[in-house]
Amino acid sequence: MALKKSTPSANALRALRRKLPERVLSTQAVRFEASVDNLKLSFLPDAVVKVKAASEVGVVLKLAQRHGIPVTSRGAGSSVTGSAVPVKGGWALDLSALNTVKIDPVSRIATVGAGMVTADLQARVEGMGLFYPPDPSSKKYSTIGGNIACNSGGMRCVKYGVTRDYVLGLGGFLADGSPVQWGLPLKKYVSGYNLRDLWIGSEGTLGVVTEAHLRLIKKPEKRALALYAFKHEADALRAVRDLLKAGIEPSILEFLDRQSVACAEAYIGKALISEASGAAILLIELDGKWSELRQQQTTLRAFMKKKVVAQREARDEHQADALLEVRRICSQSMYSLGDTKLNEDVVVPIERQAELIRYSIALKKEIGLPTPTYGHAGDGNLHVHIMYNRGDATQARQAKRGIKKLMQKVVSLGGVITGEHGIGLAKAPFMKLQHSRAEIAAMQAVKQALDPKGILNPGKIFEPFEVWNHEPVEVKFPWDHR
Amino acid sequence: MALKKSTPSANALRALRRKLPERVLSTQAVRFEASVDNLKLSFLPDAVVKVKAASEVGVVLKLAQRHGIPVTSRGAGSSVTGSAVPVKGGWALDLSALNTVKIDPVSRIATVGAGMVTADLQARVEGMGLFYPPDPSSKKYSTIGGNIACNSGGMRCVKYGVTRDYVLGLGGFLADGSPVQWGLPLKKYVSGYNLRDLWIGSEGTLGVVTEAHLRLIKKPEKRALALYAFKHEADALRAVRDLLKAGIEPSILEFLDRQSVACAEAYIGKALISEASGAAILLIELDGKWSELRQQQTTLRAFMKKKVVAQREARDEHQADALLEVRRICSQSMYSLGDTKLNEDVVVPIERQAELIRYSIALKKEIGLPTPTYGHAGDGNLHVHIMYNRGDATQARQAKRGIKKLMQKVVSLGGVITGEHGIGLAKAPFMKLQHSRAEIAAMQAVKQALDPKGILNPGKIFEPFEVWNHEPVEVKFPWDHR
Repeated sequence: MALKKSTPSANALRALRRKLPERVLSTQAVRFEASVDNLKLSFLPDAVVKVKAASEVGVVLKLAQRHGIPVTSRGAGSSVTGSAVPVKGGWALDLSALNTVKIDPVSRIATVGAGMVTADLQARVEGMGLFYPPDPSSKKYSTIGGNIACNSGGMRCVKYGVTRDYVLGLGGFLADGSPVQWGLPLKKYVSGYNLRDLWIGSEGTLGVVTEAHLRLIKKPEKRALALYAFKHEADALRAVRDLLKAGIEPSILEFLDRQSVACAEAYIGKALISEASGAAILLIELDGKWSELRQQQTTLRAFMKKKVVAQREARDEHQADALLEVRRICSQSMYSLGDTKLNEDVVVPIERQAELIRYSIALKKEIGLPTPTYGHAGDGNLHVHIMYNRGDATQARQAKRGIKKLMQKVVSLGGVITGEHGIGLAKAPFMKLQHSRAEIAAMQAVKQALDPKGILNPGKIFEPFEVWNHEPVEVKFPWDHR
Repeated sequence: MALKKSTPSANALRALRRKLPERVLSTQAVRFEASVDNLKLSFLPDAVVKVKAASEVGVVLKLAQRHGIPVTSRGAGSSVTGSAVPVKGGWALDLSALNTVKIDPVSRIATVGAGMVTADLQARVEGMGLFYPPDPSSKKYSTIGGNIACNSGGMRCVKYGVTRDYVLGLGGFLADGSPVQWGLPLKKYVSGYNLRDLWIGSEGTLGVVTEAHLRLIKKPEKRALALYAFKHEADALRAVRDLLKAGIEPSILEFLDRQSVACAEAYIGKALISEASGAAILLIELDGKWSELRQQQTTLRAFMKKKVVAQREARDEHQADALLEVRRICSQSMYSLGDTKLNEDVVVPIERQAELIRYSIALKKEIGLPTPTYGHAGDGNLHVHIMYNRGDATQARQAKRGIKKLMQKVVSLGGVITGEHGIGLAKAPFMKLQHSRAEIAAMQAVKQALDPKGILNPGKIFEPFEVWNHEPVEVKFPWDHR
């Protein structure tokens, strides 16, 4: 985009180039890359600022604040809600080069730059017998900064919790460019207000994180994984409820409905469990010390014996990884059902999951569109999808209608509209369904307090945005399978 | 205090009596009781409002907001920082009657009123094979609401974390009396800004909590406790560092310096470990499944063998409780050294604890006052005390000087001025030592956003207050030993 010489944006950009000449990038290719995230809607920034040191973020924000330029932080751009997209233009602040890491094995604390890739951190600490559990499905690419911005989850939350549970301290910058430190690399800290946790999950709208102090735990000695097939979804979800009640503590507890299993099996060209093609599935991982694991396996086998129609145990960790990979391809395999996906990550109480699944199946009939559902059944966090073809006006209308009905149902079940993706652009229409007027006003007052000029990732969370009315762009990300 | 009929306070109180006639108490005795907490400074409220239903809190706050009346929430009043004291007068809001409890054994979530006593909740869930780990030393009296207001810790944090780690959702009221819900009884939740965690630890200055949804875990099968005696504090703290590095995972890991041990032994009239009277002590609890516990015990015994001068293992859980009780009386036993205690709860990195202890011993010599220190060595969270006699002007001056020097040392070691007590009145003078001007301004902007009239627990955290210049009152609390 050619900027006129006299505009405030052009002046700001000139000032930024003077201060950080090497960091400002504005070729069409680089701007396009920073214009999208995994939601695949494109909004071009005026420029991309790729910082190489945390202090440069302060320089960027001071200028942006003075000139009123929107600043949207990004790491890998793997957000599925549009939270990393510069919907109001301005500057895309690329933090991916801030990828330092330092590990204290006594306190079990890792201090990492916001750009550190999640899986790289995991590999690094596992080499020292330590473990960083949060495992969003994009972890091979996603950054810790992005995980913090969205409070990312993953499959191991059922036992280990989410990103927030591992953040001890954050270093970063306020909207006006002042450096701040919320929490320290310490196990306990109660001094002043907890702006650390206010920032976590706020999608870069309240400040910019440049560094994080992360709690690590001891690496589990062993893990064991198995798939269990059930005739009906209701049987699988009843088993989930009962095994939690019985005190079995899986490290992964995933559910796949029959629609999802059919997609996955078509995609990989074979049955997940050969004797039970097309059945609803639970995927369960146990982990821990060897002695404890064996005890738990025995309990789980006895528990499952009369409940399942078939099962398949991974013989070793290599085979376990292969089965986990099947779960990870679910997301991609659904495109056999339509070219467009509305991807929700709702949470309902564990006891209400069966009701939600009954509803998703009824909804499939009502709107005439597939509603494949899978997810983290141990947390009540199910990914309900509506698949449709964008070009078909009827399908598009029904999809939009379906998603609104689904969200209403979730809230009526005592659930929440998003468990691990965040609001971004995609969930913004449902904020009023979830939160009262007073709650939203309080959130917005906090936003106003910390970003009075509204320069940080504007247009997100609170502004209505109808994702289905926007045309996605053709872009292939490294995390898209095949 | 006799209120003149025409003052705004008197008008507000009359209006409150009309709305909630049964809830407003203003006898001298009741007002005095609500005028103090464990800091033992008294500031009389105009009235005490003892609510019996959460909705009444909304009524109280609406009126307070309209008339500009300070409202200070309280549970048991066991805060040690003055955070529960109505330093600016107004209304003391007593939430102790909100003590409902409901437990969901499948999701493992307890929904409790703010007035629920911590130990009562623990007993209740333990009867169901579940566990609520946070164990502040006042837990027999302290309320969940108070624990949340202060983000309380305790002895088991080293393995299980603090109060914040167990709060899934909060119900409560904004300063203007609007009901709000931050989070739900769900395992995952990322909708909108996280005001739940902003409220936790904010000492009732940002809103009033009436109900909490708390995460429970499975009750550990067994526990085993032992005391280990060391020649010097440095040896004990080196053992702490090395055992954490070796991957031993205690559920309690407490340290007592020789000054504390001497006080405790004088108080109970015998040695903690008969062969090693007066030695520095580590108190270590292991817990878990029986098989795992035995394995850990073997490892710990081998680890300690050459390091200790003596040891004492509890033979059963009854004896373990007795040893824990010894640790709990430490706080009270120190009054043999002086009539007044400055009680800090600083945190430093695990590796720097020995340096802090060296400093506390040097400080003892420098200021000529005892500095007994004990605490949660597995978290780096040490309670450093300065004991003195108030009537002695030199001692009082030296105590005040000593505490300021201590806090400077803590911050210079990369530590924090408070790990589990909070700021309240007592730590307010040290806020500027810990936080930059920009950080404090951001916190105050958040306060202004959520409580624009400044009615919620005014005078705390940000206003300078010199606790040593105020005369404490004579009051005996149930948690004071003997």
